[in-house]
Amino acid sequence: MDSDYGVPRELSEVQQNRTLYQPELPPCLQGTTVRVEYGDVAIAADPAGAHVISHAYPHTYGQPLAHFLRKAANVPDAKVISEHPAVRVGIVFCGRQSPGGHNVIWGLHEAIKAHNVNSKLIGFLGGTDGLLAQKTLEITNEVLSSYKNQGGYDMLGRTKDQIRTTEQVNGAMATCQALKLDALVIIGGVTSNTDAAQLAETFAEAKCATKVVGVPVTLNGDLKNQFVETTVGFDTICKVNSQLISNMCTDALSAEKYYYFIRMMGRKASHVALECALQSHPNMVILGEEVAASKLTIFDITKQICDAVQARAEKDKNHGVILIPEGLVESIPELYALLQEINGLHGKGVSVENISSQLSPWASALFEFLPQFIRQQVCIDSVNSQNPTIDIRFLLLQHSCFFIMQLLLRPESDDSAQLSQIETEKLLAQLVETEMNKRLKEGTYKGKKFNAICHFFGYQARGAMPSKFDCDYAYVLGHVCYHILAAGLNGYMATVTNLKSPLNKWRCGAAPISSMMTVKRWSRGPATTQIGKPAVHMASVDLRGKAYEMLRQNSSSCLLEDIYRNPGPLQFEGPGADAKPISLCVEDQDYMGRIKKLQEYLEKVKSIVKPGCSQDVLKAALSAMSSVTETLAIMTSSSTGQPPL
Amino acid sequence: MDSDYGVPRELSEVQQNRTLYQPELPPCLQGTTVRVEYGDVAIAADPAGAHVISHAYPHTYGQPLAHFLRKAANVPDAKVISEHPAVRVGIVFCGRQSPGGHNVIWGLHEAIKAHNVNSKLIGFLGGTDGLLAQKTLEITNEVLSSYKNQGGYDMLGRTKDQIRTTEQVNGAMATCQALKLDALVIIGGVTSNTDAAQLAETFAEAKCATKVVGVPVTLNGDLKNQFVETTVGFDTICKVNSQLISNMCTDALSAEKYYYFIRMMGRKASHVALECALQSHPNMVILGEEVAASKLTIFDITKQICDAVQARAEKDKNHGVILIPEGLVESIPELYALLQEINGLHGKGVSVENISSQLSPWASALFEFLPQFIRQQVCIDSVNSQNPTIDIRFLLLQHSCFFIMQLLLRPESDDSAQLSQIETEKLLAQLVETEMNKRLKEGTYKGKKFNAICHFFGYQARGAMPSKFDCDYAYVLGHVCYHILAAGLNGYMATVTNLKSPLNKWRCGAAPISSMMTVKRWSRGPATTQIGKPAVHMASVDLRGKAYEMLRQNSSSCLLEDIYRNPGPLQFEGPGADAKPISLCVEDQDYMGRIKKLQEYLEKVKSIVKPGCSQDVLKAALSAMSSVTETLAIMTSSSTGQPPL
Repeated sequence: MDSDYGVPRELSEVQQNRTLYQPELPPCLQGTTVRVEYGDVAIAADPAGAHVISHAYPHTYGQPLAHFLRKAANVPDAKVISEHPAVRVGIVFCGRQSPGGHNVIWGLHEAIKAHNVNSKLIGFLGGTDGLLAQKTLEITNEVLSSYKNQGGYDMLGRTKDQIRTTEQVNGAMATCQALKLDALVIIGGVTSNTDAAQLAETFAEAKCATKVVGVPVTLNGDLKNQFVETTVGFDTICKVNSQLISNMCTDALSAEKYYYFIRMMGRKASHVALECALQSHPNMVILGEEVAASKLTIFDITKQICDAVQARAEKDKNHGVILIPEGLVESIPELYALLQEINGLHGKGVSVENISSQLSPWASALFEFLPQFIRQQVCIDSVNSQNPTIDIRFLLLQHSCFFIMQLLLRPESDDSAQLSQIETEKLLAQLVETEMNKRLKEGTYKGKKFNAICHFFGYQARGAMPSKFDCDYAYVLGHVCYHILAAGLNGYMATVTNLKSPLNKWRCGAAPISSMMTVKRWSRGPATTQIGKPAVHMASVDLRGKAYEMLRQNSSSCLLEDIYRNPGPLQFEGPGADAKPISLCVEDQDYMGRIKKLQEYLEKVKSIVKPGCSQDVLKAALSAMSSVTETLAIMTSSSTGQPPL
Repeated sequence: MDSDYGVPRELSEVQQNRTLYQPELPPCLQGTTVRVEYGDVAIAADPAGAHVISHAYPHTYGQPLAHFLRKAANVPDAKVISEHPAVRVGIVFCGRQSPGGHNVIWGLHEAIKAHNVNSKLIGFLGGTDGLLAQKTLEITNEVLSSYKNQGGYDMLGRTKDQIRTTEQVNGAMATCQALKLDALVIIGGVTSNTDAAQLAETFAEAKCATKVVGVPVTLNGDLKNQFVETTVGFDTICKVNSQLISNMCTDALSAEKYYYFIRMMGRKASHVALECALQSHPNMVILGEEVAASKLTIFDITKQICDAVQARAEKDKNHGVILIPEGLVESIPELYALLQEINGLHGKGVSVENISSQLSPWASALFEFLPQFIRQQVCIDSVNSQNPTIDIRFLLLQHSCFFIMQLLLRPESDDSAQLSQIETEKLLAQLVETEMNKRLKEGTYKGKKFNAICHFFGYQARGAMPSKFDCDYAYVLGHVCYHILAAGLNGYMATVTNLKSPLNKWRCGAAPISSMMTVKRWSRGPATTQIGKPAVHMASVDLRGKAYEMLRQNSSSCLLEDIYRNPGPLQFEGPGADAKPISLCVEDQDYMGRIKKLQEYLEKVKSIVKPGCSQDVLKAALSAMSSVTETLAIMTSSSTGQPPL
């Protein structure tokens, strides 16, 4: 017997009220008639990788952007889709659950039924496992009733994260053919959308009629590019976590004796930590991207924190809150090397028991790395320390015990799962404590004894009820999925842009997933992507972006002045209910708007410099345009000298 | 330089909106004229301890209850307080911060100023440290402006938890005299209110003019007795935690592969865990009170959980959520013994380093306890196991490493602080995992590999913005404090009862703190209260109460059917905003109402059996009353045979 998927359930007062919330549609999707305007062919942002991608995706790379417009929109080339035959659409949750996922299904169901009541939406049970095993549940209003605007993926469930091997891809195709699906919608993050693109390509190659559509849903917020401004779930995760971080700040300020080290979920990129820091104003946040860019060692980071603790103590502040992104550990060179070694051993099939008894390869790495750190300390302060050897041995024992046990605890095949098991915050807290005790003893630090308490904020937000923004965004994306499949597009991702503006200004469209891909050109070890394999890669925090600039502008007052801010618990009514992520609102992301604006400029030049204009005007136009095209050609040519496609 | 106490600060949209929320007052406290009705003398609930308490509190035990009534209330004996001279009142946060604390100060400030604008409210900075050091901040509207309805204790801060030693008590008295305080209001839980009673007694003895008033504010909800229905902060803590637990339930159901072991804050009693379980319907909750009542060993608890995991696996459910109250570890006999031994060593001044190198006394206890558990397993399944010795050694190494490190991490003087450092959830998860792996190997368990992920939900709720209920309750209690001091009462706690009814039915009063005391008659080791010392003790979960009954009624469906419920994030507007704790609402706690009802019955008997009534009626009355008085006398006489005072 299976878990009770899609079964209506008893809801609390707040849950019931949420099921009654009806997201709106932007004007372009209202009514049953929608126009599609095709833009220029979309190219990959990195021209150097374009030919690799083009080669790997011959059927699905180089397709145009699509914009969905109102029936009445004054665009001559737009095509009205007027035929709406009954369709059969499959939908599946891939990867980790993210608040708002249910609303994608709801939106798609609404759109499908609005255009043809005989169309069917079929959910796969238990994620990709269900897709391969053809375990389905027909989505109906009754099934949806208690899942509208609710968190989790429990209406359908999810299991494994990938559809990648030939066997998996063929299994998916067999299911699509057996169920006669016109389209398959895949809800997920970077990995799942890469898989979606691969499926689309394989299906096109095999002349399988099923079109594949991806939807950007991941709480990590790391599926971000020129077409995708943010992902479904990111807002909720940041709101729930910011509330908790703010509570910790209030707590720290009330008790005035603890440093809270809080590790945040978010995988390798630090988007969640950045947004939460902008919301809550903790004393410190260490982004993985900063560490990687500055090549900071664990010693540098420890010293940074210790100096901060010391500076605060001089202002009589013996408390604080420090955010540690989950991905930090991979951004620190020494720890990354250690992790790679463990992954390598595990990849060779060495079992947990044997790793524990045959520690030599990576234990030696650990023993190389930790003393290296300690030795640096000892060198700097060797004048004052009498007998550093004892301390080192004691520390090593402690740390290695902690660290080894954590690494051994669950060396899962999925390296990101392992990532969330590494308690970087505890390692850092211990190193800082040791150093502060040393400074205290030496008299360089004169504050109170350093006290750290560690937390991991991850799972407690992942199943949260989605914010209004995520409810709306997901619902609209669901509708967009229908229009993509009605237009017969394959290998596209549903997009909604201009999200920081009110919903009635949102732009709906679709972009080929392959145009979001990049190609990694170096090997970082056995566990990472192979050289040259195109994929939608997670986007790092942009250290030149406005959100990061905002963080750094406030960083010294945050550090020293306790300007904590509490966005409050996630609200569904009243003030705060309509808030959007700060990092979304400060960035100037209107890519689609700019594409339009450029077209306008080009039209304007044409209209001014018409045949009959003066020779001078024509000369000026030629000179100016020559300069423009030259500049752009230089900017877009890659370092390898390959021209863009 | 000090932290910036009471400084107005930048607030988020939700915070700003909260500062505008104005709690109402029940009719009895509206207007500037309030009547006080004195009830009968309040006695301690445990008659056996009454004489000890009476002896320890000669000036403050045996005072009457006080009820605050509307000016127009039809109660002939009530006294109208019409004189309102300017007063000077001190207020201090004691013990751990609890959401709503700021509103007590706001309510008191409002009441004080409404009755005489020349009165002053003086806050002590940094808790009892500030009280002893006379560090003060005058509370004004400006100071309060950004702290109304906000969480934390950061307007004033708090440090140490107690005012107990002669030095501390004398220091507090010196402050009260130096600042010419008419009253000192102490905001805190069981410990702080015990201290308040002691201060009141000492002040009365020393003829110090300052009256001492206690206010029941603690997130643990363990200050509960006939006069106190719940404490300020409990509702918020349970709401924030229930939301997170519900998120975990949704998460577990979506991913279908993890068991989440969640340890809850709440000190020795399990009120928070009980309320959260009633809100969220997790699969299992193990209350410390149940374990203590049934004298369950760690082996029993592990077996219970394993059997549950097995039963769920038979229904194809390989996920779940299990709540572990913080106090559980002290309720398990073997672990309690171990803790006592460590506390004892630490109490003797053995330093952390020496404990780690001279482990013998309590390490032997650990080594006695763990094998005992393992041996039981081995005995039961000795037929199947080939070489159990290796497993035992491996387990011991793992567990003792974990456990010892945790215990060593922070052996603070405050044993409850240490309590929150013991990761009981990890110990249990490991024991369950070991047992499940064993059952899997033996074929008695046929489900998927058991996967546990552990969490501790504590600090992340403690600084939360208070719920509307806590805002209202705290604000009203603040007002009550003023009326207590206006009536010249000393050693009282402010009370608001009938809380489950709408605010306009709330009853306001005051009860002598000494009447809430009990006397412990046994020694449980060096770290617990001495024999015979009266104190307000924390109340355990009532295993005969309706809230517990409700929990047990649903327990088997919760265990097997995943009837998870999500109360949602704490709302300030719309549905859910007015919710109160379930455990408050289901209990029939109207003690004050019943006291009144009894008086009515007695009056009725008098009015029926007046001189002139028939002999038969008189005989019947005598016979009935004789039986009633005899029954009550037996019920209230203690086991030691001492009559109540």
